[in-house]
Amino acid sequence: MVRTCNPAIIVHGGAWSIPDDAVTASVHGVEKAASVGYEALINGRTALDAVEAAVRNLEDDPIFDAGTGSVLNEDGVVELDSIIMNGKTLSCGAVACVKNIKNPVSLARLVMEKTPHILLVGEGANKFAAQNGVDEVEPEELVTPAAVEEWKRFKQYSQTVDSLFNKSGQRPSDTVGCVAIDKDGNIACGTSTGGITAKRAGRVGDSPIVGCGAYADNAVGGVSTTGHGESIMKVTLARHVLYLMEERKLGPSEAAHAALDYMRTKVDGCGGVIVIDSKGNIGHAFSTKRMAWASYSEGTLASGI
Amino acid sequence: MVRTCNPAIIVHGGAWSIPDDAVTASVHGVEKAASVGYEALINGRTALDAVEAAVRNLEDDPIFDAGTGSVLNEDGVVELDSIIMNGKTLSCGAVACVKNIKNPVSLARLVMEKTPHILLVGEGANKFAAQNGVDEVEPEELVTPAAVEEWKRFKQYSQTVDSLFNKSGQRPSDTVGCVAIDKDGNIACGTSTGGITAKRAGRVGDSPIVGCGAYADNAVGGVSTTGHGESIMKVTLARHVLYLMEERKLGPSEAAHAALDYMRTKVDGCGGVIVIDSKGNIGHAFSTKRMAWASYSEGTLASGI
Repeated sequence: MVRTCNPAIIVHGGAWSIPDDAVTASVHGVEKAASVGYEALINGRTALDAVEAAVRNLEDDPIFDAGTGSVLNEDGVVELDSIIMNGKTLSCGAVACVKNIKNPVSLARLVMEKTPHILLVGEGANKFAAQNGVDEVEPEELVTPAAVEEWKRFKQYSQTVDSLFNKSGQRPSDTVGCVAIDKDGNIACGTSTGGITAKRAGRVGDSPIVGCGAYADNAVGGVSTTGHGESIMKVTLARHVLYLMEERKLGPSEAAHAALDYMRTKVDGCGGVIVIDSKGNIGHAFSTKRMAWASYSEGTLASGI
Repeated sequence: MVRTCNPAIIVHGGAWSIPDDAVTASVHGVEKAASVGYEALINGRTALDAVEAAVRNLEDDPIFDAGTGSVLNEDGVVELDSIIMNGKTLSCGAVACVKNIKNPVSLARLVMEKTPHILLVGEGANKFAAQNGVDEVEPEELVTPAAVEEWKRFKQYSQTVDSLFNKSGQRPSDTVGCVAIDKDGNIACGTSTGGITAKRAGRVGDSPIVGCGAYADNAVGGVSTTGHGESIMKVTLARHVLYLMEERKLGPSEAAHAALDYMRTKVDGCGGVIVIDSKGNIGHAFSTKRMAWASYSEGTLASGI
């Protein structure tokens, strides 16, 4: 079999002020997910399969704010957002504000593959899940004691959601994401999140929004972002990273840094970015205190926070 | 008063195969909306005010698929999407899959101005509306006989929504939009739609998605798009137009044409674009059979279809 490309993968577990006592579990979590995705790649599976596998792994890890372990909205309810994108065709699928779904990234993939649409939200997304045999879980199944504690702390601290919000990335926001390239040079990316604690019911951030939380085009590369969702949306951060690579010929890490600088300059926002270019080069950057990340390429695992 | 810029405005009423018997009403509708918005501008109001006024006018016109006259989804229900964006700050507000709201663009503006969020969807968006004194209308109030007829035709023709979908812009899709620049050189844009007939419940297209259905940055210009929503999303069409203007120094019409060519090449999609650049130059383009548009600048009304 001719390999046109060395498979590679990078994942993140969210960019924010990750507290010291969560560092070990966060790094362990991203390393595990990168390994799961890389194994899929070296077994000959597609970038899409690897991204889905890695993001599912991150969603199932209660340390991260996606799937199990997601934060609670103002009403104490988990509302989930996710996207997956295929860089070969620019096809993508996404769900937003969906409830009681264990692995939103897999539901996003079903939207991509089973409908002519890209984004399904709210009750319609849950209806689609039911029609396609994706069982809902009990609401409590996704809720961790840590998420409840955090929600209580925010509710006690202030009655108004809006006053709690800040742009510096201090609010817990462990969105997860993945970018992968397979042996055929196909690139895929995915992002999944529970959003921000005490967010308004119905609030959708950047994660499930194409060009904001993720973007992939085989001709250039793939990106997943994390951080202050509204800032990321204002500058369409994922698409911006690829524009910098395409138009200004920046490398992946250089483009990631430049895009975060742009976001800080334009809207005073912080976040993190993971990237793989069309040749399989990996990059990442973050402007928050920490971002858990791990990559696997040419048999070598790298990670950091 | 020193005018740093000649106010200008352009609106569209959707890019698709508008039938002959709808041509006169469509042109009349966009001319009226452009006039309403232009009057706001020459009376010294902001680009945001002008965009909101013009889009409200288009939403209230039953000939267009936005607000009153919106198409029905698979369940025979109107679900509305809208966005508004301020090019001065990159602030934006949007609602998606909201029900029983007469003027979604004004609700989108409330999201921008009264919350730290950008996008609210579904029940959460309706809850926010109620909290902010935006009354819901009776569901029937937004439904025109023409929309019901069209829905029945599609339901009769096929039971499967998906098989009805096509990318050539033949399906009715009269999304409305507006871009304006005020005397201070501030640019704003907005887009509003009922989506595509017989869409799945919960389906959100490009219109309320920042960078897809609209984007504005005073430094470059403002854009509103229309056409096949999923294709527009795959190439983040609105942001792409501005990138072409910024990076490749294309003029507004040139960038609009180039972006539509890009969309056709990349994902075989059709649509339309309206643009104003930072100097107040107006442009538009469409790759569908027709797009109703009207502009007002230096006291002169222009229109076409």
